[in-house]
Amino acid sequence: MPSVFTEFDLMTELHQPGDKIVLLILDGLGGLPMEAGGLTELETAITPHLDRLASEGMTGLSVPIRTGIEPGSGPAHLSLFSYDPVRYEIGRGVLESLGIGFALTADDIAARGNFASVDAEGFITDRRAGRISSEECVRLCAKLQAATGEMLADEGVQIFVEPVKEHRFVLVIRGEGLGGALTETDPLATGKQPLPVTDTSGTPEGERSARLINRWVDAARQVLADEPKANSLNLRGLAKDPGLPRFPDIYGMRAAAIAVYPMYKGVASLVGMEIVEFEGDRPSHEIDALEQVWDDYDFFFIHVKKTDSYGEDGNFDAKVHEIEAVDAVIPRILALQPGALIVTGDHSTPAKMRSHSFHPVPTLLWSPRARPDTTTDFGERSCVAGGMGIFHATNLIPQAMGHAGRLKRIGA
Amino acid sequence: MPSVFTEFDLMTELHQPGDKIVLLILDGLGGLPMEAGGLTELETAITPHLDRLASEGMTGLSVPIRTGIEPGSGPAHLSLFSYDPVRYEIGRGVLESLGIGFALTADDIAARGNFASVDAEGFITDRRAGRISSEECVRLCAKLQAATGEMLADEGVQIFVEPVKEHRFVLVIRGEGLGGALTETDPLATGKQPLPVTDTSGTPEGERSARLINRWVDAARQVLADEPKANSLNLRGLAKDPGLPRFPDIYGMRAAAIAVYPMYKGVASLVGMEIVEFEGDRPSHEIDALEQVWDDYDFFFIHVKKTDSYGEDGNFDAKVHEIEAVDAVIPRILALQPGALIVTGDHSTPAKMRSHSFHPVPTLLWSPRARPDTTTDFGERSCVAGGMGIFHATNLIPQAMGHAGRLKRIGA
Repeated sequence: MPSVFTEFDLMTELHQPGDKIVLLILDGLGGLPMEAGGLTELETAITPHLDRLASEGMTGLSVPIRTGIEPGSGPAHLSLFSYDPVRYEIGRGVLESLGIGFALTADDIAARGNFASVDAEGFITDRRAGRISSEECVRLCAKLQAATGEMLADEGVQIFVEPVKEHRFVLVIRGEGLGGALTETDPLATGKQPLPVTDTSGTPEGERSARLINRWVDAARQVLADEPKANSLNLRGLAKDPGLPRFPDIYGMRAAAIAVYPMYKGVASLVGMEIVEFEGDRPSHEIDALEQVWDDYDFFFIHVKKTDSYGEDGNFDAKVHEIEAVDAVIPRILALQPGALIVTGDHSTPAKMRSHSFHPVPTLLWSPRARPDTTTDFGERSCVAGGMGIFHATNLIPQAMGHAGRLKRIGA
Repeated sequence: MPSVFTEFDLMTELHQPGDKIVLLILDGLGGLPMEAGGLTELETAITPHLDRLASEGMTGLSVPIRTGIEPGSGPAHLSLFSYDPVRYEIGRGVLESLGIGFALTADDIAARGNFASVDAEGFITDRRAGRISSEECVRLCAKLQAATGEMLADEGVQIFVEPVKEHRFVLVIRGEGLGGALTETDPLATGKQPLPVTDTSGTPEGERSARLINRWVDAARQVLADEPKANSLNLRGLAKDPGLPRFPDIYGMRAAAIAVYPMYKGVASLVGMEIVEFEGDRPSHEIDALEQVWDDYDFFFIHVKKTDSYGEDGNFDAKVHEIEAVDAVIPRILALQPGALIVTGDHSTPAKMRSHSFHPVPTLLWSPRARPDTTTDFGERSCVAGGMGIFHATNLIPQAMGHAGRLKRIGA
């Protein structure tokens, strides 16, 4: 009988010591021409160092999730770290917590909360509470934290209510012995009453968690009862940190994350990378940090955020300049002599669309062991002809492992 | 814990309203040069509008089934509709029924029938009855229908015997409570006796169905006993309509099929598309129909048959001209302002081979949201360098969904 390995089992079996690997992510790197016949942001940017890497190494196009699907930042980064985000589902509550930089522990259940409006009989009239302002959200969360934060202390459970944006917040309940498979309270339609949280796992942990969360929901709705708009709430995506297989165990690498924004530190933590603390927020500051910790790790994830932010703003020129700022630090990375350097994005954020998009992501892999292809510059069109072809993002780390001499031969 | 999604689950979860999608299929589109150094049918055709679409959009090569496998029309269309034909097996009987335009119901078991020759002891001497003519086939089916059509009326079961071509026919038995997993009668070799139909499901439905079909087979062979060649028969691929997940449910689109030939209407019906009735059989008539129903649907499958027919005939020039006839109607499709337009084939039918072939199929996707690649014309060679690369046909609908703005972002 054929035995069934997962890809991770294969990596765990084959990894060996080797050269260091750098994964440099320009968030939202992929773009579009603003007008027919024009160039993309990356094609427009003057990038002599990236072009040299493309020329000496290989390029290609990365599909973050599946063809046609627009990635969120959480799933897109999981995929870059080689965890198929369709297979490894992360609860919305966990992702929202990561998104606001809340450090989850293994004892936490996180939920995405939505403030809502209900009528006198408790029927939902607006599932988003009239899209209250983010300032309102901060005030309401503080009110809930003060009134309910300690209400489950007798059960050894702490409550955290954290604002996200507009009507959205995060609820975290922390305590030993929480768990289960918990349903959502949102009936997903107006004119209905919210549902109680129930446990579908049939475990004592699940039953207890559902009971405690329902206690909190009841108390929280009483606290909100006199609010003009946000006089109720719903909870969705209640889940624990899924306990993903740890990246350092799968690949046999001490892994460091160098990022400015909490979300990306959060996803890196989720897979077991260590977060490097440093001063400053420019690409050059991130390379300062890289140089300082170079001897302590085997793998380095470096995250540049502003390419995505400028894309979301529709600011084509600023995105171009940020790409050029990254190009300028490439020689400092090469001076450290990595065995493999990947430069790519987690997804595309074309300034033209002012949004993440489903388009595949230009990617380059440079290594002293790379087989050169015919591409001599780094851009969306040229990557179509690159030696890596069009591939799923989860292939990147194994690809880098091979190039860094970190995988043993399979079989005799 | 990781949850396991299918790709269809993912689409069901992510679909949202968006722009309209047109899937224009030129049956057997892919071709070959007739001589070394020559051009294919598509490369030879003068196609200014298709070339413009290729220039503004993306091209690539579609693999209908698996690398190297020559597709039949049924599996090839299932694949275009995003149902992997290796995973979603459709019984030969069901496919043959679709092929002749027989409308199967959920109460039907369909079988592919082969007329055969046997000797006096019932041993098979020719599994194809000397490849009798199609006219013979029509006569024999009428004879069987008249003699056996009502023989199972006492069991509440109707019999339909429908001619296909040469020695091939379709048997449909219709009644409540039929089912099971039924074996074939054909021993697949001469010098052997036909086998009885048996049920391997162990269900009462299966046992009853096997018993009834064996009754029919015995009666039918008696009816044929005095025929000079086709004095027996075999049944293969006995199955019910597999009840595929419905395309409109998976993708959240009202889907219309515009086709001239019954087979293609049949496969479209199988996945839940609605069949558009119209006058005429030319591509221009199909676009008339498209214009008339444009407001009533979100997705339009348009099927052009003659490119394949001319390929099967070995008529290179006629295939070229049919491609040009399709090119001429492209502006009428664009005038309707679809969000995504795919032009491809279900498989290749090179005039040089006078047959379907295993070659991948030239494909273009045009959309206002497409990222242009470097290709500026639509042909087999240029598609190799296209931005979609070489991909499995089941990716096309998700790809179009993204381009039409019909998929929500996954994750935060």
